[in-house]
Amino acid sequence: MKEQIFEYPLNTKVRGYLRLEHINTQLEHAIKHDFGIGLFQPLFGLYELCERVDYKNDLLKDLDKYMQLATKWQDLPDIDQEKIEALKENMAQYRSQLIQPLGAADIFQRDRFLNSIRQRLTVTGASCNFDLPQLHYWLATSPEQRIEQADTWHNHFKPLVRSVDCILELIRESEPYSENTAKDGFFQHINHSPIAMIRVKIDPNSRCYPTISGHKNRFAIHMVHFDNQQHYVNDTKFSLACCSEP
Amino acid sequence: MKEQIFEYPLNTKVRGYLRLEHINTQLEHAIKHDFGIGLFQPLFGLYELCERVDYKNDLLKDLDKYMQLATKWQDLPDIDQEKIEALKENMAQYRSQLIQPLGAADIFQRDRFLNSIRQRLTVTGASCNFDLPQLHYWLATSPEQRIEQADTWHNHFKPLVRSVDCILELIRESEPYSENTAKDGFFQHINHSPIAMIRVKIDPNSRCYPTISGHKNRFAIHMVHFDNQQHYVNDTKFSLACCSEP
Repeated sequence: MKEQIFEYPLNTKVRGYLRLEHINTQLEHAIKHDFGIGLFQPLFGLYELCERVDYKNDLLKDLDKYMQLATKWQDLPDIDQEKIEALKENMAQYRSQLIQPLGAADIFQRDRFLNSIRQRLTVTGASCNFDLPQLHYWLATSPEQRIEQADTWHNHFKPLVRSVDCILELIRESEPYSENTAKDGFFQHINHSPIAMIRVKIDPNSRCYPTISGHKNRFAIHMVHFDNQQHYVNDTKFSLACCSEP
Repeated sequence: MKEQIFEYPLNTKVRGYLRLEHINTQLEHAIKHDFGIGLFQPLFGLYELCERVDYKNDLLKDLDKYMQLATKWQDLPDIDQEKIEALKENMAQYRSQLIQPLGAADIFQRDRFLNSIRQRLTVTGASCNFDLPQLHYWLATSPEQRIEQADTWHNHFKPLVRSVDCILELIRESEPYSENTAKDGFFQHINHSPIAMIRVKIDPNSRCYPTISGHKNRFAIHMVHFDNQQHYVNDTKFSLACCSEP
């Protein structure tokens, strides 16, 4: 079994970033492995999420904040100047892409092909040959053609996705892991300064996963045993990183 | 581009069979190619479809009808007796499996793991690490373990699926293709005896797909050009099979 990191956002903004990252990972996986009809669920999911949440403003503010911080990092001794310079350049590039209109709404609202699929996809089993002949026509085109088309749709979200990836990486790297024990499968913590996200690593052989609750000032972790989906009452070792934002 | 067959059911029962077949194909594809989260959409889809539609009664009647017919076929000259015998044996086996309880409702309603995923999956982007840690734990288990588990869930539907596959194959084989032309991209037909399903094959290089409407006594085919998603006004050659039931 692979090692797994369980993450929990402690504020609304990071929660939104993690959702975007998650659904984009699903979409990339679906494009790469040629999921066929399975491509459209994460594609429309990503579109709906971006329609519902105003990512742009938060991301622009975050990029500005981290660009200023990176300039301060450059004054620190023993810092990898090249790495910081590259990071700053990337962030400036993401920023300039973000301020352009995304154009996703135009495509997703006006494209007759996408619209017909979107209307049908929410109904169980309603993507048959006779419901959506255009979809089945499209599925019969070559994988190269379909991947190219899917990439075109995906590209509309790339400025958001790349910025979110960058910010999440910086948040994740803000704090190293420390070893902890969940006494009787339970752990709680009061944060003295606001925390953006916690990350939990558990030995996969314990057959446990964490359920986490909390907000920026405190959080609690319950260990749950996978086999019976119930609280695990034994002491459980885990690694914890409390990641913060500037 | 692959050759494609577009099918259109001309009665409610066959429509239901085609839906079941379609969603089951998606599920099998998702299991075989390890779609991860993408597995659950067709899995729950299949469950919901089987809850909504009473397939069992129709299938039992159809199997009985075809078993009687197969006995009559055995009296015909030059018939492949072995093939008919094998078909009859298979149908008897499907019939005996069908009369057992499926057991899917038990699993899908009581299994805490499946239930937690099902509740979340309909909400866009709500299958994150922090929404469903149990799902992410499961996704980190080995592909072999996951495929085995997915097969166990899938097995509950196998008696229905196998029977539907068998009946649809018999319906599809009931009639060979004949060559036709859709004058100005339009074709209509009055059936003198009830038809269960029509099958349409179009040269993929025409970049057309058919939109079909109709019922057991008549049907119409409109050719639509994929590039502009509008009616194709040119004469279009196609192969047509009007498949019937006994």
